[in-house]
Amino acid sequence: MNTIPSWKDKALFTPGPLSTSATVKQAMLRDLGSRDTEFIETIKDVRRRLAALGGSPDEYTAILMQGSGTFGIEATLSSVIPADGKLLLLVNGAYGKRMLKIASIHKIPVMELTFSEDTQPDAQVLDQTLERDHSISHVAVVHCETTTGIINPIEAYGKIVKKHGLVYIVDAMSSFGAYPVDLSACGIDYLVSSSNKCIEGVPGFSFVLARKEALNKTRGLAQTLSLDLFAQWEGLEGDGQFRFTPPTHSILAFRQALLELEEEGGVAARGNRYKQNYEITLSAMQKMGFKTYLKPKDQGYIISSFYYPEHPNFIFREFYERLSEKGYVIYPGKLSHADCFRIGHVGRLDGADVRSLMAGIAQTLEEMDIHIPERVRE
Amino acid sequence: MNTIPSWKDKALFTPGPLSTSATVKQAMLRDLGSRDTEFIETIKDVRRRLAALGGSPDEYTAILMQGSGTFGIEATLSSVIPADGKLLLLVNGAYGKRMLKIASIHKIPVMELTFSEDTQPDAQVLDQTLERDHSISHVAVVHCETTTGIINPIEAYGKIVKKHGLVYIVDAMSSFGAYPVDLSACGIDYLVSSSNKCIEGVPGFSFVLARKEALNKTRGLAQTLSLDLFAQWEGLEGDGQFRFTPPTHSILAFRQALLELEEEGGVAARGNRYKQNYEITLSAMQKMGFKTYLKPKDQGYIISSFYYPEHPNFIFREFYERLSEKGYVIYPGKLSHADCFRIGHVGRLDGADVRSLMAGIAQTLEEMDIHIPERVRE
Repeated sequence: MNTIPSWKDKALFTPGPLSTSATVKQAMLRDLGSRDTEFIETIKDVRRRLAALGGSPDEYTAILMQGSGTFGIEATLSSVIPADGKLLLLVNGAYGKRMLKIASIHKIPVMELTFSEDTQPDAQVLDQTLERDHSISHVAVVHCETTTGIINPIEAYGKIVKKHGLVYIVDAMSSFGAYPVDLSACGIDYLVSSSNKCIEGVPGFSFVLARKEALNKTRGLAQTLSLDLFAQWEGLEGDGQFRFTPPTHSILAFRQALLELEEEGGVAARGNRYKQNYEITLSAMQKMGFKTYLKPKDQGYIISSFYYPEHPNFIFREFYERLSEKGYVIYPGKLSHADCFRIGHVGRLDGADVRSLMAGIAQTLEEMDIHIPERVRE
Repeated sequence: MNTIPSWKDKALFTPGPLSTSATVKQAMLRDLGSRDTEFIETIKDVRRRLAALGGSPDEYTAILMQGSGTFGIEATLSSVIPADGKLLLLVNGAYGKRMLKIASIHKIPVMELTFSEDTQPDAQVLDQTLERDHSISHVAVVHCETTTGIINPIEAYGKIVKKHGLVYIVDAMSSFGAYPVDLSACGIDYLVSSSNKCIEGVPGFSFVLARKEALNKTRGLAQTLSLDLFAQWEGLEGDGQFRFTPPTHSILAFRQALLELEEEGGVAARGNRYKQNYEITLSAMQKMGFKTYLKPKDQGYIISSFYYPEHPNFIFREFYERLSEKGYVIYPGKLSHADCFRIGHVGRLDGADVRSLMAGIAQTLEEMDIHIPERVRE
């Protein structure tokens, strides 16, 4: 069996942390003082570029928050909903459920509209619910549910939320930078994503694109010190500094990643590369006999879920390990009711990397003596 | 005026993020999957080495928490004090005050014993207070108050806290790795520090050394999801993974930093280097006529506060900028009632760097036409 040499990193076909460019990582070979001029200018530049990606840089502001994406989600939910507010959650996967958990920990009144993991939440049900329950003040949804890879129609939901005059929160963790999002057109008040997803930076912080008008009404609402979104914004707008030590190196890497996103041709070009990665994956996997969990129309190009093949020799752990030894990291499933594994299409990977993975999967199936009857879905 | 060339980083004479070694930063030139075997082994190794630094690795466990040091403090305070508990805070600076703020946000009943910023909290007052108020369940104090650089006698407090059978929390943010701490001898239940301080890693996470026996009683007490200390521990002990995306690159750097700490000769050797940095600073600064804020007996070798010189030409902003242009980053003061600036003695800096800073300060005073009457304190 051919194994990966020690001087090479495995290719990460995961939802993140992702494979990043050498130049993004090399941007971390510096130590900047967190309160010194050069770093303050770096933060400013990163925030400006992020706000521009959302399409309406005058209307929105970018707030960086230390920690992972979940920290950014918790910062938002625990900082922007007043005591007399009520949160409606559209749930069709683990990340929607996670928002529910955060809301319940912070004792935020919450209503949950849960749909099956292979189905987009129904916009009409949202409309009817908001029609009926006038105590709802905020609506939140996940854009790309990494549980399955499903893309939820955030613009359709946004139009309904705005028709009812409510605040709209979108978890765009694994989609921002890969799918164009016009914040204003989608009626989004808070969009949350993270440094180590489709901008192709390294982990260390999340970021929130917030509509200034909405954010301005949230002073003093936060239920924590560290994750106080308004106070974090005030700090960044005031002296330009973080309130507490920022991940200086991750931010340097992220600035470089933003430059490289621009060089690639922006979000549309990046989305195209990921889409190609997805298409090569889908066609090769189907040819090998794997079946996708989602219907093609709901499937995004961020990550795909594949059913375990129905073959007695298929043991996921062994399949995973054999691929990992060859230099490919795939991802286990997260579904509540089906045995799936996942393959990510994002990060600094192109067609050549994907074809290599597909050949590696074919070889692994052979090694494990697994023969799946060929079929094409639908 | 000689300014720093663009290919060189400024030397950071700050409380952190600090100057780190090239090899620590180079450890970040990789992308590891956060759930892949090699990274899980890295986390395990880091946790084992951290617990060993505290002297009683069987009794204590190390928990890494995404975010800055303050995130680690908030994780601890909001995760380990039950609803019927009460926190006594010994305060002699801004970081003690910050714990007070966190406690009040989380509605933790709290009593504050505040001392002047140039004075160690009185152990006898602590004893008498615990004697009188039997509702107190937890006591917290800062080891090195970075506000001034004062070192508080955590072992003396610990003996009193343990005499009363209470839980003892120590913020050792800027001291851990530079001052030997015997966790068990000090009676510490939770010690909090961070990746970018005296271990000489880069920012990205904090860590808590927790007495397992105490931690085991805290299941379900946490007031947040992201900062839930017990759940974080359970995750790390269970499948060895973080619950939410870890700062993979910062952790790789930190593992390298732990190896380099060992190479240097451990905490005692590192403490000696910092102490030499401090002594060179003190003697040169006094020779130039600067006066220290603290009495020598209370002053640690982490960071020192110096009064602004009484000279009409001294404008701190200009002094700071002129030093920064020469390649030295010092730190503003944080005192509530005195005009001071600070010079850090920690990070990957030795006598040569300190002598260079001292020469830079002398030159800057000359440029600003400032002549301080020579004097020696005490």
